[in-house]
Amino acid sequence: MSSLSVPPPQCLLKPFVSPQRYMFGPGPSNVPPRVLAAGSQPILGHMHPEVLEVMDDIKSGIQYAFQTQNRVTLAVSGPGHAAMECAIFNTVEPGESVLIAVNGIWGERAADMAERIGAKVNTVIAPAGGYVTNEEIEKALALHRPVMFFLTHGESSTGVLHPIDGIGELCHKHNCLFVVDSVASMGGAPLYMDKQGIDVLYTGSQKVLNSPPGTAPISFSEKACEKVFNRKTKPVSFFLDLSWLANYWGCDDKPSRMYHHTGPITGLFTLRESLAILTETGLEDSWRRHQEVAEYFHKGLEEMGLKLFVQDKKARLPTVTTILAPSGYDWREITAYIMKTYNIEISGGLGPSSGMVLRVGLMGCNCSKTSVDMVLEALADALKHCHKSKV
Amino acid sequence: MSSLSVPPPQCLLKPFVSPQRYMFGPGPSNVPPRVLAAGSQPILGHMHPEVLEVMDDIKSGIQYAFQTQNRVTLAVSGPGHAAMECAIFNTVEPGESVLIAVNGIWGERAADMAERIGAKVNTVIAPAGGYVTNEEIEKALALHRPVMFFLTHGESSTGVLHPIDGIGELCHKHNCLFVVDSVASMGGAPLYMDKQGIDVLYTGSQKVLNSPPGTAPISFSEKACEKVFNRKTKPVSFFLDLSWLANYWGCDDKPSRMYHHTGPITGLFTLRESLAILTETGLEDSWRRHQEVAEYFHKGLEEMGLKLFVQDKKARLPTVTTILAPSGYDWREITAYIMKTYNIEISGGLGPSSGMVLRVGLMGCNCSKTSVDMVLEALADALKHCHKSKV
Repeated sequence: MSSLSVPPPQCLLKPFVSPQRYMFGPGPSNVPPRVLAAGSQPILGHMHPEVLEVMDDIKSGIQYAFQTQNRVTLAVSGPGHAAMECAIFNTVEPGESVLIAVNGIWGERAADMAERIGAKVNTVIAPAGGYVTNEEIEKALALHRPVMFFLTHGESSTGVLHPIDGIGELCHKHNCLFVVDSVASMGGAPLYMDKQGIDVLYTGSQKVLNSPPGTAPISFSEKACEKVFNRKTKPVSFFLDLSWLANYWGCDDKPSRMYHHTGPITGLFTLRESLAILTETGLEDSWRRHQEVAEYFHKGLEEMGLKLFVQDKKARLPTVTTILAPSGYDWREITAYIMKTYNIEISGGLGPSSGMVLRVGLMGCNCSKTSVDMVLEALADALKHCHKSKV
Repeated sequence: MSSLSVPPPQCLLKPFVSPQRYMFGPGPSNVPPRVLAAGSQPILGHMHPEVLEVMDDIKSGIQYAFQTQNRVTLAVSGPGHAAMECAIFNTVEPGESVLIAVNGIWGERAADMAERIGAKVNTVIAPAGGYVTNEEIEKALALHRPVMFFLTHGESSTGVLHPIDGIGELCHKHNCLFVVDSVASMGGAPLYMDKQGIDVLYTGSQKVLNSPPGTAPISFSEKACEKVFNRKTKPVSFFLDLSWLANYWGCDDKPSRMYHHTGPITGLFTLRESLAILTETGLEDSWRRHQEVAEYFHKGLEEMGLKLFVQDKKARLPTVTTILAPSGYDWREITAYIMKTYNIEISGGLGPSSGMVLRVGLMGCNCSKTSVDMVLEALADALKHCHKSKV
C-alpha cells in the first residue's frame, strides 16, 4: 500500500514541446541553435579542469565585452537581478550613503535593494524617457557624499541609453564607486569599462548575448575590490559574497579554489558559446550593427506615423526601442494580434512606461534589417486590424 | 581604427567540447539525454502562457516529490545555496533567535547565512558521521526559543541521513518553524513534508533529479507563510523575497502575475522533464531503488575490506556514501586514478570529512547495480595500483 498522500501529477505525463517564436521583446531574445547545442552537452563537475577552463574563457570573453583588464571578472550564477544584488551587497555596508539615478524601473529596484540592506538611499530622478545630466550628478554627489553611485546604461523600461562619459571621473573625484547596469545594452552599444572609469559593471546572458537566462557577467575594478575586501561587516549574502566568488572563479591570490556553490554548468557552456560568437563578430561591428538596425527601424516607424518615446536621438537605446502606444488603440490588442498572427513577441511598457509604449527588442542574432521589416509589417497590419477606440 | 584596448580573446575561437563522464561524485549527477533535449528547445518569454504552464507543472511535480499540498511551492532561480538563503532570509528577521543542527558543512553554512542577516544563532552539534537526537533538539528549543530550526536531511559531506520523525511536532510545540535541507536526499530517501510537519523544504536540481544545476525547488507551509507574510522588516534580498516569488509563481491571491525577474527558461524546461521522470518512475519506487542499490554497494565495499564512515546503518544516506579513506593511501591518488582510468568521478571529503573519506554519489539515473559494479571494480583496481605510503 502506498504511503503517499499526494498522487503523481497527471500533467507531467504529457511531454512539453516549446514552440519556435520570434523573441522581439525586451528579452529574453532568441537563442541560436549553436548556443542551444553548447548547452545540451554532457554535464561535468563544477571543479573539473574542463569547467575551470570554460570559466577562464568566460572571464576573457567578459573582459573583452566590457573592455576591462579587471582581474575580478566572473559570471554570477543567476539572472541579472542576482548580479544587481551582487554589485550592491558587496560594495555597500549598512548605514552608508548611496546615490541612485532613477530613470526607469532598474534604478527603482537598485534603490529597493540598497534600502533592504540598510543603506541611506538618495536618488537623482530623470523624467521617464530622459536622463540625468553630469551637472545634476555632481551636485548630488557633493550633497549626499555617497560611497556608490548607481546608473543604468540601457534603461529597457523607457528605451533610454544613458550617457556615461565623464561620470566615472566625477564619482572618483568625490571618492565614490561608479556602478553601471548594462543588462540591456552590453554588446549593443559602446561601453568601455576601464576608459570610462566604471567600478562595477554587470549584464545578463539573455539579451544581446543570446544565451538562456541564468548567468550574469560582472566585473569589479581595483578601486571597488579595495572597498569590498576591506569591509567591516560581511555582505548579507553568502551566495553572492565576492570574496567567495572571486576565489571560486580563480580571481584571487589563494593557491586553490574552494567549493563555494555549484555553478550552472550548462549555463556556463552556453555563456561561453555566446561570448565566442561576440568575439567572432567583433565588439565594434556588433555595436555598429545594433546602431544601424535601430536607425533603420526608427526611420520605418516614423514613416508609418508612429512616434518614439525617447525624444533625444542620441539617447535612444539601440537594443530596445520604445514606441508611443498609438493613440486610440489598446496596446494589449496590438501585441496580442502580432503574437497570434506573426508569432512575434513585442511587449508593452514597464514601470514608468507602463501603458504608454510598445517595446521592441532586436538584440544579438535578432538584430537585422530582416527582423525590422518583419516587425514593421506586423505593426502596420495590427494598426489596420485592431480596433481603434471611440474615446 | 579600433577604439578597443582589450583585443578579442583567442581562447574563445576554439570550440569547447564537453567529454562524457560518469558523474558518481556527490553531484552534479549525469543528466539523461531526454533532460538535455528538453533544455535545448527554443527559448520562450518568462511570462508566456506556455512558460506559466511549465511553472504550474513544476509546482505539481514538486508537491508530489515533497509530498505536500502547500500552495506556496516553486523553484528558486539559482542553485541550492540560493534556496538555502531564500529559506533563511524569508523566515528570519534581524535579532531573532534561530537554532541550527550542525552535523556537516550545510549546517555550518546555514549558520553563516543566518548570522549575516543579524539573527542570534545557536547550534546543536552532532559528531561528524552522527546526528542529533530529538531529546537534544527539544532541550535546545526550550533553551534558545528559536523562531526557526534548521536541519539537513541528507548531509552529503558526512553521508548521514538525519532522522526526521517527531521533530516537526517538537518545533511546533515550541512555536518554531522547521526548515529542512534535502538537496542531497530528495527523491532518494523517504520524506513527507506535510506528514512530518516540515515548514520549509528545499532541494537542488542536480542530484537525484538529474537536471543541470541552476534551479532549486522550495515549498513553504501555511505556518511558514504566516510568519513570512507578516514580517516587520523586508527580507534583505529582493531577488529572493517570497512575496515577489509567490506572485511570480502564481501562488498568491493577486489577480495577475507581476514581472519579478527573468527565470531560467531552459532550466525550467529541464526541471520539468526531471520531475516528469520522477513521476513516471514513482516516488516510492525511486526511494526503494536508492535504498537497495545503496545496500548492495555498502555490502560490496565491506567485502573489499573498506569501512563506511557512518556507523549507524539506519543513518546512512542512500544517495551519497562516505567511505573511510583506506589507511596508508593518499585519497587524492585514488580519485585521480579512477578518473584517469575509468572516466568516473568520485570525490574526497568536504568540511568535517575533509581528508578522511571518499564520497560516492549514485543518484537518479546513476543509481543502479551496474553503476555499483563499475565503482567497486574501479576502487579495487585503484587500491592495487596506487601507492601505499610507508608511513
